[in-house]
Amino acid sequence: MKQIVECVPNFSEGRRQAVIDQIVAAMSQVTGVRVLDVQSDQDHNRSVATILGAPQPVVEAAFRAIAKAAELIDMNHHRGGHPRMGATDVVPFVPVRGMTMEDCAVLARQLGERVGTELHIPVFLYEAAATRPDRQNLANVRRGEYEGLKKEIATDPDRAPDFGPVTMGMAGATAIGARPALIAWNVYLNTGDVAPAKAIAKAVRHSNGGLRFVKALGLVVEGQAQISMNLTDYHQTPLCRVLELIRAEAARYGLHVTRSEVVGLLPVQALVEAAQFYLQLNEFSPDQILENRLGDAL
Amino acid sequence: MKQIVECVPNFSEGRRQAVIDQIVAAMSQVTGVRVLDVQSDQDHNRSVATILGAPQPVVEAAFRAIAKAAELIDMNHHRGGHPRMGATDVVPFVPVRGMTMEDCAVLARQLGERVGTELHIPVFLYEAAATRPDRQNLANVRRGEYEGLKKEIATDPDRAPDFGPVTMGMAGATAIGARPALIAWNVYLNTGDVAPAKAIAKAVRHSNGGLRFVKALGLVVEGQAQISMNLTDYHQTPLCRVLELIRAEAARYGLHVTRSEVVGLLPVQALVEAAQFYLQLNEFSPDQILENRLGDAL
Repeated sequence: MKQIVECVPNFSEGRRQAVIDQIVAAMSQVTGVRVLDVQSDQDHNRSVATILGAPQPVVEAAFRAIAKAAELIDMNHHRGGHPRMGATDVVPFVPVRGMTMEDCAVLARQLGERVGTELHIPVFLYEAAATRPDRQNLANVRRGEYEGLKKEIATDPDRAPDFGPVTMGMAGATAIGARPALIAWNVYLNTGDVAPAKAIAKAVRHSNGGLRFVKALGLVVEGQAQISMNLTDYHQTPLCRVLELIRAEAARYGLHVTRSEVVGLLPVQALVEAAQFYLQLNEFSPDQILENRLGDAL
Repeated sequence: MKQIVECVPNFSEGRRQAVIDQIVAAMSQVTGVRVLDVQSDQDHNRSVATILGAPQPVVEAAFRAIAKAAELIDMNHHRGGHPRMGATDVVPFVPVRGMTMEDCAVLARQLGERVGTELHIPVFLYEAAATRPDRQNLANVRRGEYEGLKKEIATDPDRAPDFGPVTMGMAGATAIGARPALIAWNVYLNTGDVAPAKAIAKAVRHSNGGLRFVKALGLVVEGQAQISMNLTDYHQTPLCRVLELIRAEAARYGLHVTRSEVVGLLPVQALVEAAQFYLQLNEFSPDQILENRLGDAL
């Protein structure tokens, strides 16, 4: 099976379209890489790109984008609502097909070394690529943001980067890591009342005692109550388990689920796992999926 | 998206391993074709191969296999329990990815013309490739088997082939067609009693008034009652609908489903459709699956 990796670099530019275009062009010029999506936020002054491809082309595309962003973005003049520390702020690798999380962590280290050595940008490895437990959480790595880190990186050994110099130029520092695919998923209820949606969101989300890899909010959208969620590890906290928990909580209020929707993209494996659960395919092997047998010959 | 087609040729040889090996070798030598599976049955004196690949390599592999079988198998001396009319008996094309049923019918006609013209073997198009409604059903095409058809093909215009001569040599005649993927699927009940399994199989199968594309038998396997099924068109009769009907029928006897199992392979789309049903993803688009966005670039 051909290996496929996703990469979701975040850049500290969401206003100057010409700058964003040049960064995106740097990635799309790499053969074998597809730029699936670019979303820019004016308030955050930040853009998020989603690229897909075989491991080495994706690493190459990410490297070129980081180089281009370093050339065009001066962090000394950057203002925006989202925490940030570098022109290319974070670069997560996400396993899609034929790859483990450790394979992605290897790519993160490989890219990090090149960025540190060739571009002289400090690089911090985070999440599944972290070299220290306290750096798994991106918020710890980015503490103080560009301005704060710039002061501490040279003097505080605890804040020394994994690769690159202990000084920060106008491109700032970059966090490079590996994490599971994130699924944005909304579940609708047969009510226009926000109160049960908020109560159910609270029941299922991790921060209030719910499922480990669920972030959830209760909203009303176009008159219909919605549990709006991010699943940050669909393998460990699968969609079926979240949905069944929502159903049970909704029943308590005499409500039920009318439909659900995936916002954006998800890996097919998330749906395969849901099918296995509901069809009770308890001894199913991925080798039984025709498409998984195509191999490299094709 | 790269087009992928499956082809499941059936050969009238299930005993002489050297003959089977040569036919399989003729297919596996074509670049871009994968032989996924070969199953030989001694009683039927018949072998079924499953190959996968891009359309033109698969057509080429099927052609070479038909030529090799015609060289090595003499239908005048073939005996076996399964109905048959040719050294290569039937050749169905099955759409797997990026292909419609009509695309597969086009491949069937293309292969049929080559087999008729170059190998001088009579070819009958069947199922979705049929040129007449009465030839959709393979049983009609194969009526009288090798011995009966050999007499009628020259004299009865109704039995004239779509391609090739109106005479049959030792290779007999071949049916070439297009059909959906077949899914072999077993659903187990929490009982060792065969009676409810037989009753439920009867309720869900097409032949007794059940769902259109379900064949089903009630059995006891290793002490556990089982509904053993073939789904002949999983798109029109999806797994979820069959399972929910089985659950409802089982409840009538105070029984429930303990697990299910897929025998062999299935297309991922069959599981995606089950996930959409159970997760109530009513407005889901295949474009939202990451893997479907890979495109030809990769």
